[in-house]
Amino acid sequence: MVIVMRPGSTQEDIQGVMATLRSLGFMTHLSQGVERTIIGAIGEKRDLALASLEALECVERVIPIVQPYKLASREFHPEPSLVNAGQGICFGGAQIPIIAGPCAVEGEEQLLQAARMVKAAGATLLRGGAYKPRTSPYSFQGLHEEGLRILSLARTEVGLPVVSEVLNPRDVELVARHVDVLQVGARNMQNFPLLREVGRSGMPVLLKRGLAATIDEWLMAAEYILREGNFRVILCERGIRTYETATRNTLDLSAVPVVKERSHLPVIVDPSHGTGKWRLVPPMARAAVAAGADGLLIEVHPQPALALSDGAQSLTPANFAALVRDLRRLANLLGREIPEPAGATGPAAGGEREPAPGGCVAG
Amino acid sequence: MVIVMRPGSTQEDIQGVMATLRSLGFMTHLSQGVERTIIGAIGEKRDLALASLEALECVERVIPIVQPYKLASREFHPEPSLVNAGQGICFGGAQIPIIAGPCAVEGEEQLLQAARMVKAAGATLLRGGAYKPRTSPYSFQGLHEEGLRILSLARTEVGLPVVSEVLNPRDVELVARHVDVLQVGARNMQNFPLLREVGRSGMPVLLKRGLAATIDEWLMAAEYILREGNFRVILCERGIRTYETATRNTLDLSAVPVVKERSHLPVIVDPSHGTGKWRLVPPMARAAVAAGADGLLIEVHPQPALALSDGAQSLTPANFAALVRDLRRLANLLGREIPEPAGATGPAAGGEREPAPGGCVAG
Amino acid sequence: MVIVMRPGSTQEDIQGVMATLRSLGFMTHLSQGVERTIIGAIGEKRDLALASLEALECVERVIPIVQPYKLASREFHPEPSLVNAGQGICFGGAQIPIIAGPCAVEGEEQLLQAARMVKAAGATLLRGGAYKPRTSPYSFQGLHEEGLRILSLARTEVGLPVVSEVLNPRDVELVARHVDVLQVGARNMQNFPLLREVGRSGMPVLLKRGLAATIDEWLMAAEYILREGNFRVILCERGIRTYETATRNTLDLSAVPVVKERSHLPVIVDPSHGTGKWRLVPPMARAAVAAGADGLLIEVHPQPALALSDGAQSLTPANFAALVRDLRRLANLLGREIPEPAGATGPAAGGEREPAPGGCVAG
Amino acid sequence: MVIVMRPGSTQEDIQGVMATLRSLGFMTHLSQGVERTIIGAIGEKRDLALASLEALECVERVIPIVQPYKLASREFHPEPSLVNAGQGICFGGAQIPIIAGPCAVEGEEQLLQAARMVKAAGATLLRGGAYKPRTSPYSFQGLHEEGLRILSLARTEVGLPVVSEVLNPRDVELVARHVDVLQVGARNMQNFPLLREVGRSGMPVLLKRGLAATIDEWLMAAEYILREGNFRVILCERGIRTYETATRNTLDLSAVPVVKERSHLPVIVDPSHGTGKWRLVPPMARAAVAAGADGLLIEVHPQPALALSDGAQSLTPANFAALVRDLRRLANLLGREIPEPAGATGPAAGGEREPAPGGCVAG
Repeated sequence: MVIVMRPGSTQEDIQGVMATLRSLGFMTHLSQGVERTIIGAIGEKRDLALASLEALECVERVIPIVQPYKLASREFHPEPSLVNAGQGICFGGAQIPIIAGPCAVEGEEQLLQAARMVKAAGATLLRGGAYKPRTSPYSFQGLHEEGLRILSLARTEVGLPVVSEVLNPRDVELVARHVDVLQVGARNMQNFPLLREVGRSGMPVLLKRGLAATIDEWLMAAEYILREGNFRVILCERGIRTYETATRNTLDLSAVPVVKERSHLPVIVDPSHGTGKWRLVPPMARAAVAAGADGLLIEVHPQPALALSDGAQSLTPANFAALVRDLRRLANLLGREIPEPAGATGPAAGGEREPAPGGCVAG
Repeated sequence: MVIVMRPGSTQEDIQGVMATLRSLGFMTHLSQGVERTIIGAIGEKRDLALASLEALECVERVIPIVQPYKLASREFHPEPSLVNAGQGICFGGAQIPIIAGPCAVEGEEQLLQAARMVKAAGATLLRGGAYKPRTSPYSFQGLHEEGLRILSLARTEVGLPVVSEVLNPRDVELVARHVDVLQVGARNMQNFPLLREVGRSGMPVLLKRGLAATIDEWLMAAEYILREGNFRVILCERGIRTYETATRNTLDLSAVPVVKERSHLPVIVDPSHGTGKWRLVPPMARAAVAAGADGLLIEVHPQPALALSDGAQSLTPANFAALVRDLRRLANLLGREIPEPAGATGPAAGGEREPAPGGCVAG
Repeated sequence: MVIVMRPGSTQEDIQGVMATLRSLGFMTHLSQGVERTIIGAIGEKRDLALASLEALECVERVIPIVQPYKLASREFHPEPSLVNAGQGICFGGAQIPIIAGPCAVEGEEQLLQAARMVKAAGATLLRGGAYKPRTSPYSFQGLHEEGLRILSLARTEVGLPVVSEVLNPRDVELVARHVDVLQVGARNMQNFPLLREVGRSGMPVLLKRGLAATIDEWLMAAEYILREGNFRVILCERGIRTYETATRNTLDLSAVPVVKERSHLPVIVDPSHGTGKWRLVPPMARAAVAAGADGLLIEVHPQPALALSDGAQSLTPANFAALVRDLRRLANLLGREIPEPAGATGPAAGGEREPAPGGCVAG
Repeated sequence: MVIVMRPGSTQEDIQGVMATLRSLGFMTHLSQGVERTIIGAIGEKRDLALASLEALECVERVIPIVQPYKLASREFHPEPSLVNAGQGICFGGAQIPIIAGPCAVEGEEQLLQAARMVKAAGATLLRGGAYKPRTSPYSFQGLHEEGLRILSLARTEVGLPVVSEVLNPRDVELVARHVDVLQVGARNMQNFPLLREVGRSGMPVLLKRGLAATIDEWLMAAEYILREGNFRVILCERGIRTYETATRNTLDLSAVPVVKERSHLPVIVDPSHGTGKWRLVPPMARAAVAAGADGLLIEVHPQPALALSDGAQSLTPANFAALVRDLRRLANLLGREIPEPAGATGPAAGGEREPAPGGCVAG
């Protein structure tokens, strides 16, 4: 922490701030420059509100030096973490798993059809929302428990691991019984009771970046989960809010290499929400893989124009299949691979398969 | 809803879109221009996902015409709503109540001292967080139930109605027993299970604007509460996230007149979070009142430099007292008034007082 | 300047960076903390590209400590600067001059009518664009020299000092011959050749904040003008670009007290561009004055619905007159005053009048 | 154009607006819905300020339907445009040319060294700034004419076509004599006099996206150049300003497919300014190519840590060479190619070479 004193601060002011810092357990380091005096505060404490020193008349600015997360940092864990999502599917290694499916579970027929289609096209996991966070209370809110039942059914019948969102800390246990990966959505990235609850679940958690979250805030949100002892966190970049209206959000692909520099956690990309327009999904999916993404999340609907939510950004199964073919070649060029979906015959619930090549050996 | 067709759409495309719209219960209206064909969809349905039509190759854009909220709109309720916060304090009329107090309840002594000081300075309600949503898990998270107990004590001893934040749907009932107004923080503006729960509580709700929420999204969040039958919603502008780093957020005061044009709900302003710097709080508090705000929320701490959170943006009691004096004169000039705090002798819990002049006659 | 070394930096790395700093003329100051080593670079040089040190593998971050402007800073000139705009009109003191008029000069009749109306309503200066920076090449681009001639005419006939925008360094001399204050628009805030040219002109310059400029970048733009020896700079906040679409821009009124803390230059507010909607202009004009603005710039058009540009944000003369009445009372409450327009009989060109009370005694 | 009337508008209001529209030469189309009345205005005029109708009390909103640019649109020119940059180098076709070099021309030795190094590494064009738009007047502003002379020298000696920025309309002719491609920088995207001047020059123009420009505003800026009869415009995405501070800007790669959908102009990507950090340049350069970029602009400096500007985002020649090798393989996979630099022996000034395979056959 560096404290910059206002010009005109007296020696008494400076000594006062240094005394306060020492009383809080910091060593101090004084540096008096031509235009400013700065005080370095040396110590390991992350739990102190040193920024409150800016309340003093004599303090101009308090500048943090060390990043505010610990468990999520590369320094804490220099090697990339591998997160096992079931059936040998692994995020964070050579594999680039693809999560695909409709925005919402709309009914049994719709979801089973979607599940079969995305599996045939090469998806590695199935997505589908049973609890939908919708801007309007008049929009379709999801089928809730019935939706979870349908997801379980698809999981068994089609044999893909399932990712689904949970909104309410009360529902974590229930959702965890039906799915393989719990998703925390962008609007809930700083829903701290929910983060703690999914942390305690021990389940793999797909943590989407908030609509206006900095990368450091996102890693701090992950830290809430890690601190509960759950290291199975997959980050997901899904676009941030900017002034640009040509796209629903601005997909920040530079977040991929930034996260990889600062953290050991895997990071995937959602070009569907990131752009809001199905025509933009294929180029941005390719770009995400080229930027180093550890996976993709893509909305696919059997009949996008009739979707109860997010149809405008959903690919048809045919467009999705073409995209997966492209992505396979691209991944291979980069020394990675899109894993094949699990065998259609065996149910997903049938226990851990042998890890696929390139899959999780640690988790 | 207006559907803009792509250039080159065929008559078959156009007829197909119109047939779909009619099958969904809309009347259609075709307008073929020089460069574009547009189809108007006439109907009242807010629950349909017409945007999904953008999934069609032939559709360029779907433009909504009517605002997406109903109960929160001026059209639904042309007069301003008055929200009674207890003790005759009313938001939305001639009064401009001031909510003041520390960011967090740090202990009994700190809160009681703060409560007495802000009351002496002219605050109308007391604020203090028992559950704190903190970016870092290592920051002070609040005293939880003990904090609520202290707030109750301050409410009785000092006699000010109390505002406090609730984070978890599970805690709504508990918090509601100790406070007069439930606060939903910026990070939870789209925590829909929480919105429904505070809606069901029937308590006054202070709904802060999300860090990156549009005004329409904010009104949609209010709609979730109203739809549960709870019309006691007070909106609170607290700054939005922009690229500017001179302030913690950018306080969007134009949101005040925009909300008043679109909605009947009262809207107050939080210049403390809105700026993040105590030096900026007085001018922005004045500006908020001049822009037409129905109240203010201001952080005040007995010793800001030692605050466990948000000290940099907290006023000292002396600075706060000077500000309230200014604001009184300004309010009077504008034909409004800062209500006097309730009599120090009578406890807040002693039931509804007579409404103060200019206070709530309806609620 | 503080250089933060990457974790794992060797003593050799550290010594290397310190040697480089010393060779550039800085004194260095080493502080080795638990998690990071930081090097303070002490010196006065603003002209070095120390940020380039981030190109080194061993450097994590370079943090500037001192603000990058000098002549524009409060430290350089602790008292507020007063800028004389002609006829005793002064920005930066007790006066709050109001600049009003149409977005563009559309013709002689329109401008003279507008000039008389805004003067009758209480405007202190007249605005009108002869060179219009328009997003589209198909939009009205202004009358150019003919527009300047009309402005000169209005200045003489109606007797108000005139403010008008200049876009091209080539036109500075010409525009300066016809107007009292040169305006540099938001799109040109970082048009450095233009800034130098208006600096050399010695004329008062109204410098609008760029659409996405930080306050520090804006002050750096002012520094370009000051550095040419021209201290007659008036800053103008006119809204910044954010994700919010309810307003054309987000008017950042907190920029007013921030500028006043960092700089001695006067700062005015343009609520017309700041909101883009005429209904929002009166509340935001009031808020600007309450926040401490040193003036206002307001678009007024005789017939807004027929304006060739920006009609949606223009007040009618009647609405403007009502607003000025309000603002006078507000200014007085705050110990300031809206100066009366110069006597209608004497032409503006008739030389410097006696300074009005509260006007410029220094310039 | 669609005009949405306020609820409560009378038949007289509606007829009045329709009469105004007809008097302006539009056909009108009335559609009276349950909650709103909307009026369609059919016509081709782009030069009218219909938005000014929002000044009317009875008008809620004016919604444009057709995009505001014409010559830049795909509808006007359905095939991609090929822009010949000299020596057979072509933007917009199968080639993906790479422009590389230092931010600024710092001296003859530095530039020649940089030019030889980037050519050896595979760059197709050389960049270097002689006129530098710097936020601070105290930063290095470029060598001006001497810089142009050095660029000419490098062009002849090393044999790469040269790209350099022009800031002032007065300098266009001079700069055009020394370089192959004129660059208009982000800060000048809406410097309309400059756009007209580079339009008149007939030279290829590299038009960078403004820091806070929407894609449509960027295409409108291109329209200013096209309208002068100069169709040799290359767009360059270089990151937009957002709240995120981990990167200097947020590189908006989705702009690449959006531009390709809306326009026929080639679009390249600058990952150096887009990220501001050299470590992020290689992954984002790869992502840009995968997203469909028609070229790259990459800052390379012989000794980045000593660069007079932008060292933190400059690659070393060795890192750049490794990146070009990667990009070649990626381009080939996508059916495109990074063109080889022109033969080192022949000077660039030696006239047009035969077009390289995949190069410009039209231009």
